[in-house]
Amino acid sequence: MKVSQLFTKTRKQAPADETAKNAQLLIRAGYVYKVMAGVYAYTPLGLRVLENIKQIVREEMNAVNGQELIMTNLQPKETWETTTRWSDDVVDVWFKTKLKDESEIGLAWSHEEAIMEMMQQYIESYKDLPTSVYQFQTKLRNELRAKSGIMRGREFVMKDMYSLHNTAEDLDEYYEKVKQAYLRVYDRLGLGKDTFVTFASGGAFTKFSHEFQTICDAGEDILYVHREKNIAVNEEVLDDAVKELGIDKSELEKVKSAEVGNIFNFGTEKSEQMNIYVTGQDGSQQPIYLASYGIGITRVMGVIVEKFADDHGIVWPDNVAPYRLYLVRIGQGEEVVAEADKLYQTLRDKGIEVLYDDRDARPGEKFADADLLGIPHRVVVSEKTMTAGKLEYKARAEATSEAIEVDALLAKLV
Amino acid sequence: MKVSQLFTKTRKQAPADETAKNAQLLIRAGYVYKVMAGVYAYTPLGLRVLENIKQIVREEMNAVNGQELIMTNLQPKETWETTTRWSDDVVDVWFKTKLKDESEIGLAWSHEEAIMEMMQQYIESYKDLPTSVYQFQTKLRNELRAKSGIMRGREFVMKDMYSLHNTAEDLDEYYEKVKQAYLRVYDRLGLGKDTFVTFASGGAFTKFSHEFQTICDAGEDILYVHREKNIAVNEEVLDDAVKELGIDKSELEKVKSAEVGNIFNFGTEKSEQMNIYVTGQDGSQQPIYLASYGIGITRVMGVIVEKFADDHGIVWPDNVAPYRLYLVRIGQGEEVVAEADKLYQTLRDKGIEVLYDDRDARPGEKFADADLLGIPHRVVVSEKTMTAGKLEYKARAEATSEAIEVDALLAKLV
Repeated sequence: MKVSQLFTKTRKQAPADETAKNAQLLIRAGYVYKVMAGVYAYTPLGLRVLENIKQIVREEMNAVNGQELIMTNLQPKETWETTTRWSDDVVDVWFKTKLKDESEIGLAWSHEEAIMEMMQQYIESYKDLPTSVYQFQTKLRNELRAKSGIMRGREFVMKDMYSLHNTAEDLDEYYEKVKQAYLRVYDRLGLGKDTFVTFASGGAFTKFSHEFQTICDAGEDILYVHREKNIAVNEEVLDDAVKELGIDKSELEKVKSAEVGNIFNFGTEKSEQMNIYVTGQDGSQQPIYLASYGIGITRVMGVIVEKFADDHGIVWPDNVAPYRLYLVRIGQGEEVVAEADKLYQTLRDKGIEVLYDDRDARPGEKFADADLLGIPHRVVVSEKTMTAGKLEYKARAEATSEAIEVDALLAKLV
Repeated sequence: MKVSQLFTKTRKQAPADETAKNAQLLIRAGYVYKVMAGVYAYTPLGLRVLENIKQIVREEMNAVNGQELIMTNLQPKETWETTTRWSDDVVDVWFKTKLKDESEIGLAWSHEEAIMEMMQQYIESYKDLPTSVYQFQTKLRNELRAKSGIMRGREFVMKDMYSLHNTAEDLDEYYEKVKQAYLRVYDRLGLGKDTFVTFASGGAFTKFSHEFQTICDAGEDILYVHREKNIAVNEEVLDDAVKELGIDKSELEKVKSAEVGNIFNFGTEKSEQMNIYVTGQDGSQQPIYLASYGIGITRVMGVIVEKFADDHGIVWPDNVAPYRLYLVRIGQGEEVVAEADKLYQTLRDKGIEVLYDDRDARPGEKFADADLLGIPHRVVVSEKTMTAGKLEYKARAEATSEAIEVDALLAKLV
């Protein structure tokens, strides 16, 4: 892509009403457009990042036999009444609206009940289980405040997976597999080192549920971490968990963290509340064991920005970046244009995604944009580099540049 | 994919409350799940079809330099007030809801105003135009009735593209390009022969707007067609159009048709109503010319089902089918299982998407499912075919089968 063809532009100033660093940087760089508090559109650059994150998550969910589908935004009231979750007193983030006949419908903030209701149509016997389905869905949640940028939106993209099982043991085994798949996801997103499976509150069938928390100053949670033992505990359950784990509080490091995923074991609760059963091997009606597994895709994008950004802008990990390389052309002369065009073509032929700054602009402006946009690799073509017979290369995360040949550049990127 | 692993199942009966053929077949085959009238979830099979359609549309929109982005479902009231389209009297399909502070917000039924408002932030001068952006968005429309299955939903997927220009001439030229891109889309979807650019009402700046209409008995429109001259006129503007085109009504064939796309020239209307201008070459403030281009992705899927289905079920065109080949294994013997498994692997190694019916079920049930699902190619592996040294092949759209060798099968599919 040529920068001259992008309709987005970088901005020097963040909007005055935006206090979250992730949104400030993403807006300044042109990745997101703020429609209203907690509601952001994703420009072509932003969508590329989202799709990269989704693809990593998709591959790992497929690897644990998850089947991708897509549920709906509009949900009938009846779906949620049997579990009491239609009530605004029980779930305080509902957006609701009405059909022409005045009947109330809900806008999906989650899909456990919707999935169970759908599965009822396909699952009759124990032979139909286990099964696991997931979607990338736009969720709408009527948050009272929305001040964390894309980390907590009123509209956001979530990957939610649901697994259904005949027995608690089968669920547990799969739950453990998904836990490992989640850790692979965060590894591939560049967050692995600082992401922990965390004991948290809210488990329906054990004292604890599991969150995935990434150490991050912008996070809303407080975590107590033991890096060597790979243990993390959310502050909200610290006393209980420490007792259960047999560790001393003083061994734990206190850090701020952001939730990047959560998994829940519902046991047979939903099945029983909704009166959805399968025929067991002995002919009896058996309840279904349900677990759900969420990753906020847009939230993770925000956490990545918060975590890696520096004073000059965003720093994308390679796997997530909208483009791998920012190609800066300095000069408008015929020869330097030809040389930069040629390199652009060579790189594209190798399948490398390049953002080519072909604008007639000052070098300082181009370097500043390359930094703000956070493209992981940068290379300069100028009269100077042509005379030297080498390109000027800099990694976004490093301070100094080096002179390298085209082959060495390719070796870094392929 | 193995049929034994699909969680969906085929059904012999359509649901009693579903009158549209497309929904009846899609539900019976397990492509969609009905959540409520006009609101359908897409199972793994259905999602594959949708993604195939989207990818064809995406490639053709990219070919006319469209840039993909994603706007939001939640829209502020203010965005639509300046053009009067917030009013339920002007737009009668709004779903509306409220934030916690009681302020009203809308759920996106369209995005012209939203796009213009966003573009205002990026576009300052005539040099920033033309530009063209598109999205695949879930639209919500509060239809009074929803009886056409996925052809007219309360929740549906639309590709909507918006182009912005400095001059009417530049818009016209691009509009013509998109028209050709649309015809390529319908060609690739297998609808080309029966799809016409149609004169219709509702143009803001000419007497006519343009619809793309596909001849289809389930359609809601009446079309007058001249196949040789490649002319089609919507009944609603017949008299006017016939006069303008200088043709005789008697030359036209009257058919039922379904709208599969529409394009609008808004001229400078939105720009002026919303007070969004760019600086022209002479320094003056100039209005922006806007056109929008829609294709209902889920609607097109419904039209394809309606148009090609026969008494036995769905018939997908090759480019749209969730899988290219249905591999029927007859028998559970060790040798036949090994032979079918081997063929499944060979086909997958060649990159062919295969649905492998590995169930322990009667041949008649497998053939019926293959037909209902509408997979374009079917091949049988059985003791009989192993003895003969040839496979039994049948195209879904044809009545008779033939004995062919593996290489001949590959030649049909690669």
